[in-house]
Amino acid sequence: MMILRYTGASPYVRKVRIASSVLGLDDKIELSTVNLDDESDRLRGENPLGKVPALIAEDGAVYYDSRVILEYLDHVAGGGRILPRDTAARFAALRLQALCDGILDASLLLVYENRYRPGEMRVQSWIDRQAGKVARGLAALEASAPRLIGTPDVGQITLACMLGYRDLRFDEGWRTTHPRLHAWHDAFAAQVPAFAATKFTG
Amino acid sequence: MMILRYTGASPYVRKVRIASSVLGLDDKIELSTVNLDDESDRLRGENPLGKVPALIAEDGAVYYDSRVILEYLDHVAGGGRILPRDTAARFAALRLQALCDGILDASLLLVYENRYRPGEMRVQSWIDRQAGKVARGLAALEASAPRLIGTPDVGQITLACMLGYRDLRFDEGWRTTHPRLHAWHDAFAAQVPAFAATKFTG
Repeated sequence: MMILRYTGASPYVRKVRIASSVLGLDDKIELSTVNLDDESDRLRGENPLGKVPALIAEDGAVYYDSRVILEYLDHVAGGGRILPRDTAARFAALRLQALCDGILDASLLLVYENRYRPGEMRVQSWIDRQAGKVARGLAALEASAPRLIGTPDVGQITLACMLGYRDLRFDEGWRTTHPRLHAWHDAFAAQVPAFAATKFTG
Repeated sequence: MMILRYTGASPYVRKVRIASSVLGLDDKIELSTVNLDDESDRLRGENPLGKVPALIAEDGAVYYDSRVILEYLDHVAGGGRILPRDTAARFAALRLQALCDGILDASLLLVYENRYRPGEMRVQSWIDRQAGKVARGLAALEASAPRLIGTPDVGQITLACMLGYRDLRFDEGWRTTHPRLHAWHDAFAAQVPAFAATKFTG
């Protein structure tokens, strides 16, 4: 068995869980909860960055971060499934993943600004800087919402997790302002059962 | 010609420039400076995240972030050169890249804590959190410094850029406390002329 170190509210973990389901690997991966605030958790030995997801393979090797794990799981499943071999499709998927990971990174910094700083220590120009990345990213995605394909690729999986994270931590306003992304989200949710099955917790 | 949107002090840009040199692609890439503080810079149209590096290919497609660009350049150069095809070597390189990118991400957050916040708005627990990622990451690398190989892979290129960034923004103390990384750094610098040629500016 592989072991996935995880938390229920991480969008990067959710990428891995959806990938695992899409690739038919759920039976081979055991979930192991991490308490990110517990410095004695063995996670910091597995991944010095102290981040989830971390995947421990059957031979004990540890894989991180989510991009590396997705490529590894695709490899385990035979290759070329969520990470296309065709050059154009592959780089479109990788770029979409990078854009959505970047929107997530900025979104998490906005969450952390509230979580780790008392009100008087928050800096508006920093908040605006991160919010600008999110807004421009969502606008670019709305302008060219990807076509939904049979097996979702790493880009589409990341897009779904990013939109889900907006719902979790921010509000559902993006649905009104980004109708094509809203339609894409609902179509993805209908087509990929793992999306509902991995709904954020905590 | 491809166009690389860049700044002189970005460790992620430096990854691309070293990769370009190692792959013999310098003649095919034109450098184009970005002013990250200028909102009218066309960068935000090219990459909605407003980050460098962004690579504009000959057909106008834009690639980001640094990991995607490194894979794209490897592909342009024929494949399997800085991103090994052999499974074990490939995932070792990808994991090393992820670890060093993560150390860089934490290092940049430490730099930004000073750059974007007045002294009284800095939060020690946040600083400690990021510094912990850096310290554990460097310790893990010291404990298993990678073997230097003929053509550096994406992991080794990222490791060199990460150590260079520590020198630029922090201090050279890591050399004393991490002698194996120090030796690795000097061997890399001696073997890869692009490392000195892409010394940080600005």
